[in-house]
Amino acid sequence: MNLLSVADLPLEDLERILKKADDFAPGVGDPTAIHREKTLALLFFEDSTRTRVSFERAAKRLKMEVMNFSVGGSSMSKGESLRDTVKTIEATGIDVVVMRHQASGAPWQVASWIKSSVINAGDGWHEHPTQALLDCYTIRKATGVIEGLHVVIVGDIKHSRVARSNVLALSRLGADVTIVAPYTLLPPNIDSWPVWVSQDLDVVIPKADVIYMLRMQRERQTASLVPSLREYTASYGLTAERAECLPENAVIMHPGPMNLGVEISADVADLPCSLITTQVKHGVAVRAALLHEIL
Amino acid sequence: MNLLSVADLPLEDLERILKKADDFAPGVGDPTAIHREKTLALLFFEDSTRTRVSFERAAKRLKMEVMNFSVGGSSMSKGESLRDTVKTIEATGIDVVVMRHQASGAPWQVASWIKSSVINAGDGWHEHPTQALLDCYTIRKATGVIEGLHVVIVGDIKHSRVARSNVLALSRLGADVTIVAPYTLLPPNIDSWPVWVSQDLDVVIPKADVIYMLRMQRERQTASLVPSLREYTASYGLTAERAECLPENAVIMHPGPMNLGVEISADVADLPCSLITTQVKHGVAVRAALLHEIL
Amino acid sequence: MNLLSVADLPLEDLERILKKADDFAPGVGDPTAIHREKTLALLFFEDSTRTRVSFERAAKRLKMEVMNFSVGGSSMSKGESLRDTVKTIEATGIDVVVMRHQASGAPWQVASWIKSSVINAGDGWHEHPTQALLDCYTIRKATGVIEGLHVVIVGDIKHSRVARSNVLALSRLGADVTIVAPYTLLPPNIDSWPVWVSQDLDVVIPKADVIYMLRMQRERQTASLVPSLREYTASYGLTAERAECLPENAVIMHPGPMNLGVEISADVADLPCSLITTQVKHGVAVRAALLHEIL
Repeated sequence: MNLLSVADLPLEDLERILKKADDFAPGVGDPTAIHREKTLALLFFEDSTRTRVSFERAAKRLKMEVMNFSVGGSSMSKGESLRDTVKTIEATGIDVVVMRHQASGAPWQVASWIKSSVINAGDGWHEHPTQALLDCYTIRKATGVIEGLHVVIVGDIKHSRVARSNVLALSRLGADVTIVAPYTLLPPNIDSWPVWVSQDLDVVIPKADVIYMLRMQRERQTASLVPSLREYTASYGLTAERAECLPENAVIMHPGPMNLGVEISADVADLPCSLITTQVKHGVAVRAALLHEIL
Repeated sequence: MNLLSVADLPLEDLERILKKADDFAPGVGDPTAIHREKTLALLFFEDSTRTRVSFERAAKRLKMEVMNFSVGGSSMSKGESLRDTVKTIEATGIDVVVMRHQASGAPWQVASWIKSSVINAGDGWHEHPTQALLDCYTIRKATGVIEGLHVVIVGDIKHSRVARSNVLALSRLGADVTIVAPYTLLPPNIDSWPVWVSQDLDVVIPKADVIYMLRMQRERQTASLVPSLREYTASYGLTAERAECLPENAVIMHPGPMNLGVEISADVADLPCSLITTQVKHGVAVRAALLHEIL
Repeated sequence: MNLLSVADLPLEDLERILKKADDFAPGVGDPTAIHREKTLALLFFEDSTRTRVSFERAAKRLKMEVMNFSVGGSSMSKGESLRDTVKTIEATGIDVVVMRHQASGAPWQVASWIKSSVINAGDGWHEHPTQALLDCYTIRKATGVIEGLHVVIVGDIKHSRVARSNVLALSRLGADVTIVAPYTLLPPNIDSWPVWVSQDLDVVIPKADVIYMLRMQRERQTASLVPSLREYTASYGLTAERAECLPENAVIMHPGPMNLGVEISADVADLPCSLITTQVKHGVAVRAALLHEIL
């Protein structure tokens, strides 16, 4: 079994993984979840702290063995092909490959080459399904329900695999999703997405149950997609003033790493209603549940 | 006990390790091979995917602890001497050091400085004894025997520690070895090697039981050792046409990483008679047997 | 519980850790020291061989899980803040963070942000408390006592966190400490240190029980803090001639990595009275004792 896209994941599987994650929360013992003989390979072609660590911790919770690969210290720097590399890794006896790659679709290619399970931990601007799983889990733990919730996702939708996977997952679980972004940061096919679109954050905020801020990369300014980071913050940043306009029980989320002072201010990130650290914490439990499901 | 060179390894030890490797094949449980208190250090001064991973997997199969060293993240970048580094590593309580170094002979130096066992995982153009062990094991598993087999090794013999170690091991086990390479890629002392030498691959192929292709590095073209990679492929590449001229039960091998389309074409690498992935798989079992022998 | 500075460590805790280290020497089994469910994060922003490996080995001796972070392969290279990084790491479920950072005081900041224990493994020129612990332990194992000993620390005191932490620890344990360094390599506040200061190594050596050589970095010459490395060696290096002037039972120490031929000559480093390798060996036991104390 692979997890390449949220779109491929049957709703019942998605629900089962979210439910199972409770069994893998910190402090919960699960003697049936021992997979001492199974091995996870982490194959990251892009930098990552939280996703890589989260998978490693999840695998260790199942007592799996973890093999770390990075492009720097491997034969990829000798020009070995991706296919050659993954077939080599598989031949050493790997059960699950978790991969992040800058090219959209790379995990599908890898899945076609090997028999081991493949989990997409982010492919280009395309998808990041386990981030969506952990975000759905975090929302449900905090609010009790996803169906009927109004989730507002703010920022650079166009270049965000997190937004793409979350829109897919949240809408399938019955949430109403609103996208807030400047036109230059919307994907060309936004009309086909199951979302409302707005350019006015101040209008949307008072009606949000969940406000999900995306990382604003400084490179977007250089590429003239936004006039300046300061103007971006003025229109699309979650400042203290804007956070005060949120409804009483609304929660604040961010996939990290944050650009503090750009898309979110430091004091907002630390508010009691901010789930940003909780997302990281739940990431381990959700990924452990996913690995357990796959094995 | 060290393993620095195939030449130093008594034939009976070589035979015993090959025999023992059967006990460490995937899925074979060996309760006597637990070395929970023993630690392996991986000390790689050159990039590697398969060798490093293979040793790590082998050590984990014996339940050994594994410590990973790389030049980048260590005090070597502060100018610490190799001797200082290995004595430090040993002092933290290491039982076996597996090392790869760009300088021929470096493992002998290290072995003279420390009491822990040293395994040469490749030193410059000199030797790569565990690659030879796994190749011999792979050949024997595939053909049932090594004695009397005709093994053809093709490519950049001069700069290949794989070729050097394999010629030593295979000839001692009774194989007839033919080397096929342009004159510029033969070592100066080729006359003293226990091999036949040819420049005509097409003449040799129909008589090969094993055809072992070596990686052709692009740097050789820059250094004018071959006129161009295209001409190299024309004369020395294992193309689909040439593969069809192999005898019926012949097998194809390559130590990886491959330069597909240069020394071997992609479709040939995927033929049923190609053992390239099998080599990687057997590498783990053979190295586990070696570690077991050493401990 | 944190260990940020030797100054913060109550003398009774210091004594207890030194005493406990005996229980964690190689070959000593301690069935009460199993912490299988606890996790150590290694967060190194500067290169290190011995400290990183030493902590990793110590943690494994307690059966702790170890997570390795390095700046290169993490989101820090995307500009993530230190605070964001450590909060992320903590959220994945970490019990102890061992950190090295180029900025003096960084571990105090981290300790203010997270609830996990923080161990300072070196912050700028400021402190390196576990080095002092292992050095005190090594001295006591070799000489039986620290109180009343005459310890001479030689070299670049100004830029040495090792010197700072050792002066604090040794003087609190009752040793008399003499600092030998050129004026340019003394810290501005040296008058407030509980030490004697000398510029004449040859006068001091015959009265030393312990002579502790510090690494002399080549950069100091470029910065004109010493006229040349050759002149530095002439005045402050531990040459074979100087080593012969040491009292009979004196011992030689160095925190490593050594610049052989600069602050210490190769033959002196290998003398029977040199404890340099022993320091590394004891480092594992002392750090295991510290981790056991913290957990």
